[in-house]
Amino acid sequence: MSPAEHDLLVIGSGPAGLTAGLYAHRSGIDVFMLGGDTPGGQVTMHYKVENFPGFPGGVTGADLMTRWLRQVIDETDSMPVSESVKGVDFSRPAKEVHTESATYRGRAVVIATGAGPRRMDVPGESEFQGKGVFYCATCDAPLLRTMSRRRAVVVGGGDTALHTSLALLPHAESVTIITRGERLRAKPALIKRILKNKNVQVLVNLSVKAVIGDVATTALLLEKKDTGEFEKFPVEAVFVGIGQSPNTSFLGGALHLSADGSIVTDSSLQTSIPGIFAAGDVRETPLRQIVTAAADGALAAHNAVQYLQITGG
Amino acid sequence: MSPAEHDLLVIGSGPAGLTAGLYAHRSGIDVFMLGGDTPGGQVTMHYKVENFPGFPGGVTGADLMTRWLRQVIDETDSMPVSESVKGVDFSRPAKEVHTESATYRGRAVVIATGAGPRRMDVPGESEFQGKGVFYCATCDAPLLRTMSRRRAVVVGGGDTALHTSLALLPHAESVTIITRGERLRAKPALIKRILKNKNVQVLVNLSVKAVIGDVATTALLLEKKDTGEFEKFPVEAVFVGIGQSPNTSFLGGALHLSADGSIVTDSSLQTSIPGIFAAGDVRETPLRQIVTAAADGALAAHNAVQYLQITGG
Repeated sequence: MSPAEHDLLVIGSGPAGLTAGLYAHRSGIDVFMLGGDTPGGQVTMHYKVENFPGFPGGVTGADLMTRWLRQVIDETDSMPVSESVKGVDFSRPAKEVHTESATYRGRAVVIATGAGPRRMDVPGESEFQGKGVFYCATCDAPLLRTMSRRRAVVVGGGDTALHTSLALLPHAESVTIITRGERLRAKPALIKRILKNKNVQVLVNLSVKAVIGDVATTALLLEKKDTGEFEKFPVEAVFVGIGQSPNTSFLGGALHLSADGSIVTDSSLQTSIPGIFAAGDVRETPLRQIVTAAADGALAAHNAVQYLQITGG
Repeated sequence: MSPAEHDLLVIGSGPAGLTAGLYAHRSGIDVFMLGGDTPGGQVTMHYKVENFPGFPGGVTGADLMTRWLRQVIDETDSMPVSESVKGVDFSRPAKEVHTESATYRGRAVVIATGAGPRRMDVPGESEFQGKGVFYCATCDAPLLRTMSRRRAVVVGGGDTALHTSLALLPHAESVTIITRGERLRAKPALIKRILKNKNVQVLVNLSVKAVIGDVATTALLLEKKDTGEFEKFPVEAVFVGIGQSPNTSFLGGALHLSADGSIVTDSSLQTSIPGIFAAGDVRETPLRQIVTAAADGALAAHNAVQYLQITGG
């Protein structure tokens, strides 16, 4: 039996996906939401969200996303199904999305599967995440002010690392950039700007091998790439700035991706296939924040609705 | 005495302006906020905001913006000054902004002065605003379900009116479009799509002369343009869709504007002058929602900070 065809499938249940579902439903179309295995997305793991508007004093990521999810459930009388997408077939007007157990069809699709920060994949990294190991300077730089020594290490040598460093500077006494490369490989203007600061130090040819700590991070274990020697580098705050890793493996090459694996969209958030939209951290975007992901969701839904209106039905 | 030069001036205290201020402050730069005479912006006048994420059951516009403002005050230890901008001088690196009583200078500026829906300017319009007279179908279409008759009038004949009509259709028994023109003047695909619906009626050559009601709207007074006759048209819900009116008069031609008076930006939200950014309803944008304005504020602040970093100082 052929599965029901919905007006719109939304894949993902973080800020972008939930907002897309909310807006699509409110515009009166038939929307089906595939939520994956983490309802609320990676925000649910944030200890405290201080920069989402409307929440003075901040809100835990879990609380924010619970409220968001409840709003969607109240509005739509349904909730995203807890299935993860394993594959897609966008070759026909009825776009197909496959999970482990079922196939769903939609005339339009919003992909909002998010991204995770690229991880160092070293021992201690997961254990001390949020306890001295951070991935978002915009979110967590102000935490430096609560530490006994406001010295931060940034891991990485590209644009992400340098933007991370710049975001830390107003909050940190000193910032040490540690890269395994022979030099920084970011935009020249950015490098110039960074090297102007007396309280920035750049250490090259060093690989992070482990995060060391007790209740929280106390040091990094580094390997000198030229000699193979190990060194213990004392630090309480490590910001990993080696890029984002968009969740796009399920696409299997169906859409045009950027060099870093993000989905490329036009200004209407439409991808390389008409009727397929991408919203939030999974797309190529200049700023990955909760509020920008939510706005993406609203805009993608709005444009998906217009697409459905124009293509008839 | 020359006024102090700030890193960034933010003009406007609605969702875009407050979010720009929040993000700029959190990034560690010196930001000065000019709030105008309506702290919180036009959202404060919304009876109920149902589509801003994180608020299941909805929130009044006033409550939402009070929370937003409190968040900014808590973070920045300051609040937007209640002065309105009367003029600007962006010709020098130290950009100047003039109010009635003072001059402020910034190395970068975020303009977030918002827009108002274009009004019909007829008797009864203000009196019955929110009581049968609406300006945002995306926001208020679901209210139709609470009315005794789910019949709506849309005033206007352009894209705004037709998008308004499409947004109403899932909620309305019938939609009557009333335009003073001889025909609809929207995108052909949109017109075609609208005329397909049996429950849409288009009435041409009619001017709205007044909104009539008691505790709420009961009718429109229409004038037939060809004969000059008047007609009373009974209706409980009127959606005015004659466009938006961005608040840009203070610019005096300093920036490139679109045909409808919105500020034109590139994808980084930078205007025709480097270092001057625009965010939210005041800029040319495909969707005017609270969440998209907030995201604009975050992105404009982010890019203003990068601009300041690159241009040194």
